[in-house]
Amino acid sequence: MNILITSGGTSEKIDRVRSITNHSTGRLGAAIAEKFLAKGDQVTLVTTRKALKPAAHEHLRIEIVENVAELLAVLEPLVKTHDALIHSMAVSDYTPVYMTGLEEVAASSDVAEFLDRSNSESKISSQEESQVLFLKKTPKIISKVKEWNPHIRLIGFKLLVDVSKEKLIETARASLDKNQADIIVANDLLDISEDRHQAYLVRKDSLEEAQSKEEIAQLLVHYLHAKEL
Amino acid sequence: MNILITSGGTSEKIDRVRSITNHSTGRLGAAIAEKFLAKGDQVTLVTTRKALKPAAHEHLRIEIVENVAELLAVLEPLVKTHDALIHSMAVSDYTPVYMTGLEEVAASSDVAEFLDRSNSESKISSQEESQVLFLKKTPKIISKVKEWNPHIRLIGFKLLVDVSKEKLIETARASLDKNQADIIVANDLLDISEDRHQAYLVRKDSLEEAQSKEEIAQLLVHYLHAKEL
Repeated sequence: MNILITSGGTSEKIDRVRSITNHSTGRLGAAIAEKFLAKGDQVTLVTTRKALKPAAHEHLRIEIVENVAELLAVLEPLVKTHDALIHSMAVSDYTPVYMTGLEEVAASSDVAEFLDRSNSESKISSQEESQVLFLKKTPKIISKVKEWNPHIRLIGFKLLVDVSKEKLIETARASLDKNQADIIVANDLLDISEDRHQAYLVRKDSLEEAQSKEEIAQLLVHYLHAKEL
Repeated sequence: MNILITSGGTSEKIDRVRSITNHSTGRLGAAIAEKFLAKGDQVTLVTTRKALKPAAHEHLRIEIVENVAELLAVLEPLVKTHDALIHSMAVSDYTPVYMTGLEEVAASSDVAEFLDRSNSESKISSQEESQVLFLKKTPKIISKVKEWNPHIRLIGFKLLVDVSKEKLIETARASLDKNQADIIVANDLLDISEDRHQAYLVRKDSLEEAQSKEEIAQLLVHYLHAKEL
């Protein structure tokens, strides 16, 4: 099979020296890539410069992206040529539009106007005591995957922080329906450490639990290879 | 001598999964550390987890910080026990206070109120079409150094983007006076690449120019060791 995996976290620039980054080590994506490579699959890994990478392998191809716009451009053609997408990347939900001092915002009669502005300076001045940053939503990539390729198997991820198991699974099921995913891997940041990674692999009618990145990777290999038969 | 060096770029959390990061590879700080170690000095390097580090050395001690608050706490006692501070770290000018949807901001009669709020959620929801992030200025660490230790030699850095040589030097001289620094190393992001680093070492009555990180490091070693005699 041709397996497409995303990993790491995207960064959105505020100016030439500052970005908003979504944290993700890339360790889970690397573990998943290694398990599929070991199974004999072709793997394309779309990841970020700072993410952990799997060891080089003749069936592994790596594409580096920084932000959501680049991810979108790189992913669309790849989704059309792969059998499955395992989308573990932490993708920025918002991207900076305009940053300005509080006084300019206070003086405005319609704050929505700032969503149409952009900063002309390359490095925003640090004179002001406070700043206001306006951000707009990025395109939701997971929702486009089945439009790009209705036949691709789609594994999505949902990361929440400090919620109940019920809330985690409920949120995963909503994402499963909305994005026509085959599995949503639901996890809570508080249950993730370097050597532990609790996750629920949520499907329409079933649920599996994993305790480590290797176990998540193994369950995904089983699932996608079973479906192939 | 006991040389204190800062390098890398700080990150300020928006929530548990997102931060604003100041970009800096740490390569310049590492090059400076190596030159002083080669000269026989004791070096304490305060840096970030992702920054490039110099090779291990028996006279090198490394302290890791993430954000401005941690930097402040770590640096104050160190400044009191070192002969010189070379402050090449890219320190965040602003730290996130509160993030909310545009509608809540539009409905407010006094936007300054948001500077007193904080987000209770661990991961800010991504339902809204746009978000507004309020930030406040961080303490300016370089301005505190001579208060902490009037005898320390202080080398500061000023990074601008796409400005004239005159503007760069003028800005450096203002910082020199304001922070009672011995040298401000002024550089323009557009003149920095992996193998090139143009910089002006600005002093009260003189100016030296460097073309690489090694040359900047060498000039700083010369300057601090000459002063000692």
